[in-house]
Amino acid sequence: MAARPDLLGLTSKLVAIPSLSGEEGPLADLVQSELAPADHLAVTRIGDNVVARTDLGRGQRLLVAGHLDTVPAAGNQTPRRDGDVLFGLGAADMKGGLAVMLDLARALAEPTVDVTWCFYVCEEVTRAKSGLAQIWADRPELLAADAAVLGEPTNALVEAGCQGTMRVMVSMGGVRAHTARPYTGKNAIHRLAPVLDRVAGWEGRSVILDRCEYVEQLQVVSIEGGVAGNVVPDAAALTVNYRFAPDHGHVEAERFLHVLFDEYLEEEYHDSFTLLDEADGAPPALDHPLLASLVEATGEEPRAKVGWTDVASFYAHGVPAANFGPGDPLLAHHPDERVELAALERTRATLLSLLTAGA
Amino acid sequence: MAARPDLLGLTSKLVAIPSLSGEEGPLADLVQSELAPADHLAVTRIGDNVVARTDLGRGQRLLVAGHLDTVPAAGNQTPRRDGDVLFGLGAADMKGGLAVMLDLARALAEPTVDVTWCFYVCEEVTRAKSGLAQIWADRPELLAADAAVLGEPTNALVEAGCQGTMRVMVSMGGVRAHTARPYTGKNAIHRLAPVLDRVAGWEGRSVILDRCEYVEQLQVVSIEGGVAGNVVPDAAALTVNYRFAPDHGHVEAERFLHVLFDEYLEEEYHDSFTLLDEADGAPPALDHPLLASLVEATGEEPRAKVGWTDVASFYAHGVPAANFGPGDPLLAHHPDERVELAALERTRATLLSLLTAGA
Repeated sequence: MAARPDLLGLTSKLVAIPSLSGEEGPLADLVQSELAPADHLAVTRIGDNVVARTDLGRGQRLLVAGHLDTVPAAGNQTPRRDGDVLFGLGAADMKGGLAVMLDLARALAEPTVDVTWCFYVCEEVTRAKSGLAQIWADRPELLAADAAVLGEPTNALVEAGCQGTMRVMVSMGGVRAHTARPYTGKNAIHRLAPVLDRVAGWEGRSVILDRCEYVEQLQVVSIEGGVAGNVVPDAAALTVNYRFAPDHGHVEAERFLHVLFDEYLEEEYHDSFTLLDEADGAPPALDHPLLASLVEATGEEPRAKVGWTDVASFYAHGVPAANFGPGDPLLAHHPDERVELAALERTRATLLSLLTAGA
Repeated sequence: MAARPDLLGLTSKLVAIPSLSGEEGPLADLVQSELAPADHLAVTRIGDNVVARTDLGRGQRLLVAGHLDTVPAAGNQTPRRDGDVLFGLGAADMKGGLAVMLDLARALAEPTVDVTWCFYVCEEVTRAKSGLAQIWADRPELLAADAAVLGEPTNALVEAGCQGTMRVMVSMGGVRAHTARPYTGKNAIHRLAPVLDRVAGWEGRSVILDRCEYVEQLQVVSIEGGVAGNVVPDAAALTVNYRFAPDHGHVEAERFLHVLFDEYLEEEYHDSFTLLDEADGAPPALDHPLLASLVEATGEEPRAKVGWTDVASFYAHGVPAANFGPGDPLLAHHPDERVELAALERTRATLLSLLTAGA
């Protein structure tokens, strides 16, 4: 392999190409043109997704995946380098990770496991648009693998599995009345008070799986109600987002929320509990040899991924996966988004060690 | 005086003429044309307000007032008579009262007190448009009186004075965060929970003045908050409507709400308490001889008016006033709005007795 690669420069180049979800074409063009000359890779483009695969007949195949898109800019669309730090939209989530992938994909002609490098679109928007889903639908053979590493920002530590997510709306009814005579009606917003208390006071559940602690969360994400300034309102609703540990699927999660809220719901007022959306998480699966080796290569304890990531999509398709990328997850979608050279290099060294083990 | 007047027929005639706030012209035309032939009345039109006055040099003057406008129709714009009941928009609030006023104004050529009959516009909308305010601004001498009776629906009982009203918005701040990591932020909706509890659990204050019990009310009339389905929200607000007894003015009322909410407001999150609007109420003033006589003429105990009415406008201009009209206040603005002949006749008889006392 050649001299120490300029990972910060490559990240800067990727950040400089805007790639808002749905507008990843120019960035996909760059990725495709950078990988096409590599004789050891078979490069396939599906829409604006790019998949590059070695085919060395190794005993195992690792899939390394990262999304091309970013959320909308927040005044940070122009990359700016300050010493060993690169600032800019997507630096952490996850063009730093893409730079490491791109560099290793080109450089690593003879890995000791076969590798599938997958660059996909529309991770930051509704899952119906997901590039991964598109490839699984159209060309599932391209994604076949024994295990997967997803380059989401994790500070170059393994964040194992991911929690599930569910949104539920609790709607309460009431009876309209004049606010000077509320005893002739029933205030739906007042009726919501104990539900809000229940959520705000919820102590949480935490579960340890494969040495990783999954701490569940329950948050009210919206609330609304009201008719007019002098009217006792007859309708009010709140929506909660539940982040649940991967020892439970969405069925258990929904049952849990039902039990939490059922005592407040009254038929008389046509109260309702509505499931808005849900996505199962994924267990850590750190007993898989490739993922165990990844953890070992980092030299650090693995942690739980508390947010939902496409690790769950891989798990749903039978591919155990872990999150591992150079950015700081707390900086994702942050105006001050940035990535440090040390994290890029640590990520690259760890993956390199995993992909050349036994060589 | 002539044969028993057809008060239900006259109410029906008034209901048949639409008079949504701001569109009272045709109804004002009718009122004006009905009163103009009466030699004992000086009729003045100001915009679509109509004022008709006797000028008999009596020692006292009573003002009898009623609004011409209605709220929007709810499928009840066409009057329908069922036996001794008249259904239709405005039947209770307050075309039944207008019918009694119109009938007595024409019939009563020699009352023992001078009478000012005032038919005014835009009571059901913002007070900035109030016809009463317009007359007070342009022709205050037309409204000069020793006392006033306002024909708002009271079931033909005296509802004395009125409570004040105030709206206040409590806004809470927070810190945005991903819902999987809420501990890195602060949920503004969760912070609102104890405020909502405080209002929903408020026991109220009640005050007895002139034998009338004023029961205060505090209701949340709207609530809102939320950023996105996966974001810990950094802003939430609720609006309360406070109905306060007339022993307090708006200054005391605002101070009371301040004390109620102050402990929850934190500078750190830029929480705020905002006065949206307020209107003082009016004390019962039942010691005024004309209002005392009115109560006596009903033969019933007076009650407190718990909503705000233009009795407060009269009081603010130095004219003690009481609510007294034939409709049921609980049917105001109700699709099933109606008025009963017996209530119309009782109202008429009571006013007649008051206006002919000592004759």
